[in-house]
Amino acid sequence: MKVALAEALGAFWLVLGGCGSAVLAAGVPDLGIGFAGVSLAFGLTVVTMAYAVGHISGGHFNPAVSLGLWAAGRFPASQLPGYMIAQVAGGLLGAGVLYLVTSGLPGFDVHAGFASNGFGTHSPGGYPLMPVILIEVVLTAMFVLVITGVTSQRAPAGFAPLAIGLCLTLIHLISIPVDNTSVNPARSTAVALFAGGEFISQLWVFWLAPLVGGLLGGTLGKILFASEQEV
Amino acid sequence: MKVALAEALGAFWLVLGGCGSAVLAAGVPDLGIGFAGVSLAFGLTVVTMAYAVGHISGGHFNPAVSLGLWAAGRFPASQLPGYMIAQVAGGLLGAGVLYLVTSGLPGFDVHAGFASNGFGTHSPGGYPLMPVILIEVVLTAMFVLVITGVTSQRAPAGFAPLAIGLCLTLIHLISIPVDNTSVNPARSTAVALFAGGEFISQLWVFWLAPLVGGLLGGTLGKILFASEQEV
Amino acid sequence: MKVALAEALGAFWLVLGGCGSAVLAAGVPDLGIGFAGVSLAFGLTVVTMAYAVGHISGGHFNPAVSLGLWAAGRFPASQLPGYMIAQVAGGLLGAGVLYLVTSGLPGFDVHAGFASNGFGTHSPGGYPLMPVILIEVVLTAMFVLVITGVTSQRAPAGFAPLAIGLCLTLIHLISIPVDNTSVNPARSTAVALFAGGEFISQLWVFWLAPLVGGLLGGTLGKILFASEQEV
Amino acid sequence: MKVALAEALGAFWLVLGGCGSAVLAAGVPDLGIGFAGVSLAFGLTVVTMAYAVGHISGGHFNPAVSLGLWAAGRFPASQLPGYMIAQVAGGLLGAGVLYLVTSGLPGFDVHAGFASNGFGTHSPGGYPLMPVILIEVVLTAMFVLVITGVTSQRAPAGFAPLAIGLCLTLIHLISIPVDNTSVNPARSTAVALFAGGEFISQLWVFWLAPLVGGLLGGTLGKILFASEQEV
Repeated sequence: MKVALAEALGAFWLVLGGCGSAVLAAGVPDLGIGFAGVSLAFGLTVVTMAYAVGHISGGHFNPAVSLGLWAAGRFPASQLPGYMIAQVAGGLLGAGVLYLVTSGLPGFDVHAGFASNGFGTHSPGGYPLMPVILIEVVLTAMFVLVITGVTSQRAPAGFAPLAIGLCLTLIHLISIPVDNTSVNPARSTAVALFAGGEFISQLWVFWLAPLVGGLLGGTLGKILFASEQEV
Repeated sequence: MKVALAEALGAFWLVLGGCGSAVLAAGVPDLGIGFAGVSLAFGLTVVTMAYAVGHISGGHFNPAVSLGLWAAGRFPASQLPGYMIAQVAGGLLGAGVLYLVTSGLPGFDVHAGFASNGFGTHSPGGYPLMPVILIEVVLTAMFVLVITGVTSQRAPAGFAPLAIGLCLTLIHLISIPVDNTSVNPARSTAVALFAGGEFISQLWVFWLAPLVGGLLGGTLGKILFASEQEV
Repeated sequence: MKVALAEALGAFWLVLGGCGSAVLAAGVPDLGIGFAGVSLAFGLTVVTMAYAVGHISGGHFNPAVSLGLWAAGRFPASQLPGYMIAQVAGGLLGAGVLYLVTSGLPGFDVHAGFASNGFGTHSPGGYPLMPVILIEVVLTAMFVLVITGVTSQRAPAGFAPLAIGLCLTLIHLISIPVDNTSVNPARSTAVALFAGGEFISQLWVFWLAPLVGGLLGGTLGKILFASEQEV
Repeated sequence: MKVALAEALGAFWLVLGGCGSAVLAAGVPDLGIGFAGVSLAFGLTVVTMAYAVGHISGGHFNPAVSLGLWAAGRFPASQLPGYMIAQVAGGLLGAGVLYLVTSGLPGFDVHAGFASNGFGTHSPGGYPLMPVILIEVVLTAMFVLVITGVTSQRAPAGFAPLAIGLCLTLIHLISIPVDNTSVNPARSTAVALFAGGEFISQLWVFWLAPLVGGLLGGTLGKILFASEQEV
């Protein structure tokens, strides 16, 4: 139960902090935090909760990470369903709190996007489907590769949560304009269910591509760090 | 005495650095640091002073943190009054230095806000009372949860001040537009007493909500890290 | 083979993350990450991959760094060709992925620069050849000096990837307006081959100056840290 | 000699990186790094060089820090002159490189400021003399207090360069609009000698105030960390 609670709280924090900063603070005129601030916020949700509860659950907070670590031989398949359910539930709770905060604001429209991921007309920069799939697969693969590397036995101890969180910041610095950046199906699902409409019908992309990327990254990590074990 | 001095200096630095960067540097045309820079400044006040004096006082600098750590079973109730008095006194001194710096500037009006927290017409984004209370409770709870987690025995040693400070940065990235972000009654009190008027009459919110959040977060931390002790 | 794969993946990540954030996210109106976000992205590619694969290959990702470490007596000459080939190949792959992502975007013109380095009319700020050579030599020398210092035996263990990556961030904060910042011939080559034209004919500068800088920095590091060995 | 070289290189890097980013990159339209980017650059010069050469010279790079550490009982008076001469010389070399880089640029005017510190008409925000003195004294005192704290025996090992550099970032986030932020007479002297005119005649403020602040901070650090020794 503690493990599920830790994963749910991490995904809760990731959605509230990452999507919350995007919805509440990114676009404020003159003073807003912009895409760079949102990128930092997403990363810091992982830095903070991975240091806080990583020693309980491993600190995945992301179905693509759990699947990738399974592919790397670091995580038992039997725990995948439980982790994924906790991650999606926690993410939804984070989106729910964000919805309550914004719902009292005159003129706010949750259906305008709510920081949902999307392609085509729902991509911030108008990117079509193929580049969105490509970037999600590649970035998730590199994310999981970094995770397997920094948690391998020979990597410096203690720095993994910092490196993993800052990797998520980097991923957002690259790709928010492409599709608002997913690499995490729980994050995508949480806000899309509130935004509704085409944000839901496009949601399959943000499950498929990150999961494929996670499998690729985990496999690559298994090759590179074969003789090492997770610490 | 060293403990009280450490807590007062930490709160002094938090108000001078966080509210100071907001008042002096956030809104400079074209070059200003914006909400993202202010968020970084608030976080770095805690990173720097928690590394510097954390080994003396624990590095709370915040009544809601002290109360939350008491709820988590990490801090004796007998020391709560002394810590809180030192924190408020240090914060006031920080606001006083900031007042002296700005008072010589033509056109500066301390009553325009002085980085005070507020709701309704005193919220940067015009957020009403209920979302302000909600976000303060949730963010303070997560702040204290992260603090209890990163200082638990099984967390990597030495990284706690970094994770805690960056958590405060994250919290500001999310919520400055909502209410200028409190999660710290000492910080709120320090500048509100200079700003005066409705900033003082709204001050109860920024004691009540962070303290409630601190209790929730500490209790959650107690459950998650029950078998562990503070390092 | 693992060593070559690690170096190629690191250079892949550096080009995709650094040049990718520049091409995709820097100039988005109002919300774009600007030069500061790009600087952070370049640095974080090194922070993340140096923690992830530094224990396999040393984490150079850069011909000027490999050459500089040879000058410092930290790296065998026999491995220089293999490292450099892997770095250039990885960088090209990163630029290739970036090209695929952008090629589907209406109005995108890879020949406009693609984050290539340049002087004169191809310098963001219109800087002529001599200051570009000077800044590249000096910044690469300091980069390699920092690398030799933070990996010397008496430096705090574990912090080297963080310090090295943040050094690359700093270097970009200084010099993007001068020449888009190289200090890395593999990064320069990767995108110039896609941009074509004068970006290719100017490429010699971004091999010559960083390599000279690397030699200077490595020599300086050898003097300063003579009695110490790499950890 | 290695100690002097280390201090000179650190001050060289601080001026080239901090003042360089301010002069070259802060004000670029739309994409410039602004005061927040300059703040980060100043801090990262110290993070990188303190990790690289801190184990040789202690990593002061700043006369006010050397004097403050003497006041704290951490540094012998006999070494003060040598350290200060190396720091000023290194800073001047950094300003010289920056001058060479900018001198080839049409329309650049070194006498417009060159990132020099100043009050009154030479303060970015028009702050008069008294608030400038006040903020320099207070910020330098806190800087030295943080330095003495994070290098005391009971502070977590290895994090001192990170905390000290980020403290310098914080200080710049607060006070660039006030006087371009000194807290370091070597940095102030280096660029003022190139800017000339009133920037030189105001230079006494940026020796006096940081040195007084350093003495205050060192004394405070001696009281707080009396029973501890530098690591």
